[in-house]
Amino acid sequence: MVEPQGLRAIRCGVRRHAGPSGLFFPMGAVGSAFTQLQQHLHHTRLLGSISSALYYDQNTVMPAAGAAWRGEQLALLAGQLHERQSSAEYAELVGAAEAELGADAPPERRRNLELLRLELERQRSLDPDLVRALAMAQSRGNAVWQDARARNDFSAFAPALQELIALRRQQANQLAAAESVARSPWEILAQPFEPDVSKARLEELFAPLKVELPALLEQVARARGQAATKGAPSAADLPEALQEQLCGELLDSWGYDPARCQRSRSAHPFSCTLGPQDFRITTRVVPGQPLSAFLATAHEWGHSLYEQGLPRGDDHYYPWPLGEATSMGVHESQSLFWECRVARSQAFAERWHPRFRSGLGGGPASDPWGGVPGFWRALNPLQPGLIRVEADELSYGLHIVLRYELELALLEQEMPVEELPQQWNRRMGEWLGLVPERDSEGCLQDIHWAEGLFGYFPSYALGHLISAQLAEAMERDLGGAGAIAGAIAAGEERRLQQWLGARVWPLGRSVNGEELVARVSGQALSAEPFLRYIRGKVEALQAPS
Amino acid sequence: MVEPQGLRAIRCGVRRHAGPSGLFFPMGAVGSAFTQLQQHLHHTRLLGSISSALYYDQNTVMPAAGAAWRGEQLALLAGQLHERQSSAEYAELVGAAEAELGADAPPERRRNLELLRLELERQRSLDPDLVRALAMAQSRGNAVWQDARARNDFSAFAPALQELIALRRQQANQLAAAESVARSPWEILAQPFEPDVSKARLEELFAPLKVELPALLEQVARARGQAATKGAPSAADLPEALQEQLCGELLDSWGYDPARCQRSRSAHPFSCTLGPQDFRITTRVVPGQPLSAFLATAHEWGHSLYEQGLPRGDDHYYPWPLGEATSMGVHESQSLFWECRVARSQAFAERWHPRFRSGLGGGPASDPWGGVPGFWRALNPLQPGLIRVEADELSYGLHIVLRYELELALLEQEMPVEELPQQWNRRMGEWLGLVPERDSEGCLQDIHWAEGLFGYFPSYALGHLISAQLAEAMERDLGGAGAIAGAIAAGEERRLQQWLGARVWPLGRSVNGEELVARVSGQALSAEPFLRYIRGKVEALQAPS
Repeated sequence: MVEPQGLRAIRCGVRRHAGPSGLFFPMGAVGSAFTQLQQHLHHTRLLGSISSALYYDQNTVMPAAGAAWRGEQLALLAGQLHERQSSAEYAELVGAAEAELGADAPPERRRNLELLRLELERQRSLDPDLVRALAMAQSRGNAVWQDARARNDFSAFAPALQELIALRRQQANQLAAAESVARSPWEILAQPFEPDVSKARLEELFAPLKVELPALLEQVARARGQAATKGAPSAADLPEALQEQLCGELLDSWGYDPARCQRSRSAHPFSCTLGPQDFRITTRVVPGQPLSAFLATAHEWGHSLYEQGLPRGDDHYYPWPLGEATSMGVHESQSLFWECRVARSQAFAERWHPRFRSGLGGGPASDPWGGVPGFWRALNPLQPGLIRVEADELSYGLHIVLRYELELALLEQEMPVEELPQQWNRRMGEWLGLVPERDSEGCLQDIHWAEGLFGYFPSYALGHLISAQLAEAMERDLGGAGAIAGAIAAGEERRLQQWLGARVWPLGRSVNGEELVARVSGQALSAEPFLRYIRGKVEALQAPS
Repeated sequence: MVEPQGLRAIRCGVRRHAGPSGLFFPMGAVGSAFTQLQQHLHHTRLLGSISSALYYDQNTVMPAAGAAWRGEQLALLAGQLHERQSSAEYAELVGAAEAELGADAPPERRRNLELLRLELERQRSLDPDLVRALAMAQSRGNAVWQDARARNDFSAFAPALQELIALRRQQANQLAAAESVARSPWEILAQPFEPDVSKARLEELFAPLKVELPALLEQVARARGQAATKGAPSAADLPEALQEQLCGELLDSWGYDPARCQRSRSAHPFSCTLGPQDFRITTRVVPGQPLSAFLATAHEWGHSLYEQGLPRGDDHYYPWPLGEATSMGVHESQSLFWECRVARSQAFAERWHPRFRSGLGGGPASDPWGGVPGFWRALNPLQPGLIRVEADELSYGLHIVLRYELELALLEQEMPVEELPQQWNRRMGEWLGLVPERDSEGCLQDIHWAEGLFGYFPSYALGHLISAQLAEAMERDLGGAGAIAGAIAAGEERRLQQWLGARVWPLGRSVNGEELVARVSGQALSAEPFLRYIRGKVEALQAPS
């Protein structure tokens, strides 16, 4: 009550903040090494989730002028998190818990300690000077990129990118010390997003996409040329209030519980976990894209369902690694399942077309799509474009393979940064039949490289493959081919949720992404299920209505 | 990038969090003691403002199930704040800065160090065991009170209150060591809210209120009896969207800048500062009270204007004490000025009545108030009630004096806790002519005592007195009696803001509340300006329309 912040806190009504945290983390607590480590992790989680809360606020409410201060708040927390995850004290806690681990210890406990050890060694293998230099280069890179993109000036961005590549290479060299198997620099940088990922596997998985997807795109383009009316009709915008209402109805029908989740508006849709019982999703209404908010809601809800379904049960899970999402690819598979497999499906279009119509008044002018087939096609434009985040299921994978190959070339194959635009544009022309006129719509479009984030893009494509393979396993379990469509037609998506909630979400980090797929589907991950699915969908979309 | 939180952070897109805070707080930074202390305070501010951000989220968006985790996050930050404000390391920083202070040091620096020293000594005079016991008792007290109020069972709350009183007395005893002058326990507890406040001064200030306000209330009641039509007409509810729109128009006309401030909905209106350039206010729409959101917006905006106007200029202010609000009474004077002196004024009613009418359609049925005088009376019901937070300007002071006297009796005069309901009800009957039928509408209505918050209530009444006295000074400067009404009539409230921004807000904590009033008005604070103002208002409200 006598902090300098006193008055401010009181104006905010935060009277209960004055208590010491000792209530939750008694100083000098005694207990087993395991318990002490658990308390340490719990505290780390609290800090991490505070960051998430600040991030959520920043992107939904914060006034623009608050940005600099918010940056300092986040940096302060990041510093505390880094310290908690790499300090000698923490290393001792992990070591003591390992020493305490008897031969009869539960395997979950062993796995948790393995994962913690791996992350600890990674943190400790890094030179703090490099960590600092990287943070500064990321921050600079982002600022330079924002400006270069706005002015469509790749050459202004090139030196920053060059510096980020050099620093990331150094980082990979330092991290190599913590690796138990030999990995290339790109592979090392990709580990945090996709544990155990290798270039060899990605090449196996992506090779069929590089062959089949351009062929399918060509087929679609030919068909569109023959029957212009089969394209997605350009529906007028839906009123914003109607879009909001339909998003709300969608969530309600998919088990949204406002006591556990809240949704807001933000410039870019995202999903966020703020605590073990506190989930948030955001959407935006995009002028000229009447179905964008609806599909983004389905997508973000898919992410949130996974987070909400992660195991929380006992001492092995929260706040331990086993209670976390296992990889970005698996995360993305969950959002893509609900967006593409469900919300873009024919069965779903049939069920929801009447709602969209009646939202527009129900009169003769209330159907800009001219019936269910048109509505379904509007949900699946199958029209290649320059921008990844606007891509549909058919061309999305090619956007990713392109980025994967180029970041590999930059990081490991000595490709000069200056060649990036030309290499980008060449692949776009070959695979998608489109060449960007401006780098701002080409190699400057994504934020990832601007912050030196290499190794992240493949997860997006893996998400499509994993979603398709899990969907096949789901159909086998739920009654065979067509079971998903059947559940959707019957308005019983909760059956799909129940299956994911029984088979996928509780696995946490007990397995990596590939192991998860193998365990759930009985098969090694491959591109085949996705290609089967997308071929079938293209065919159905082209069938006479 | 390799924290356990990695994936979660990335899902949230918080990629830039990975940087170390070293950017902002270099380890082992060298510099003068002053600079080191400033860095320490800056860091403390960051933590305090993170708490405020979490509080804001909690009250505007957070789903109910997030409460327990949020409580842990806030307790963690409170612990860090307490540590930073009482540690030996911090004490050394303050001591070194004091030692560095030469005879020619600027007076602002001296004042800052005095304020920091005072707060430090307070923090360090407290036994950590007591701090912990208090935090637990507050938390328990709040929970017990929620339940007791819901069940209207004072006896269930009495033991918790008794314990809080005992702990607060202990706290006052410990804090006495840090006081430079002799103060009673109640006075010591009130210092954080109203620095240098004394019972003797409060008795001087409140005595005229106890005499005059009941008399005025009686006069109003008599007049109402004679002419029933002069009461506030009971307007039908205004549509929620219209209330929102009018609140927005009000803020726009009062200089609201969405780049620096955002507003949200919350269960109870509040104003909050999240950073030096990040302000928030909240309101709510209350069914059956069509003007509530509008007046609350005026009130909270007044708080926010003060915060936005606090000095930020140079090394003496942010993050130093001089850059802070000086007292709760002064803070409240700023909100009350905009709510009561401006938004409830006759000139304002005249200017805004057409907007309310046109918002309702502008037709003959669009004026539930039957003209400006009725609208003005609706803004000023002058009808005593049982509930403090719903009280108008005339009876509000009496609600406060009642609480002040009772908490004094509890803390310093051995009044048994059991007598509280009876003593409460007796005063309500005498002063307001109303006796609560239930304690939930009587001595159980406020949260303050449930958390052992004694010494806080008088600031609310001081706010009325300070607002009135500053308003008289403002009128002298702006052209004499009626200058405020004149500015409002001309739609030039910015002139009033400019005056406050020149005379009041920049003072920060260079003076305490009473000194501020004396400096700005040239007179010691007294109840007379408020009584002059309220007598005039009552008379005008009763004049034939």
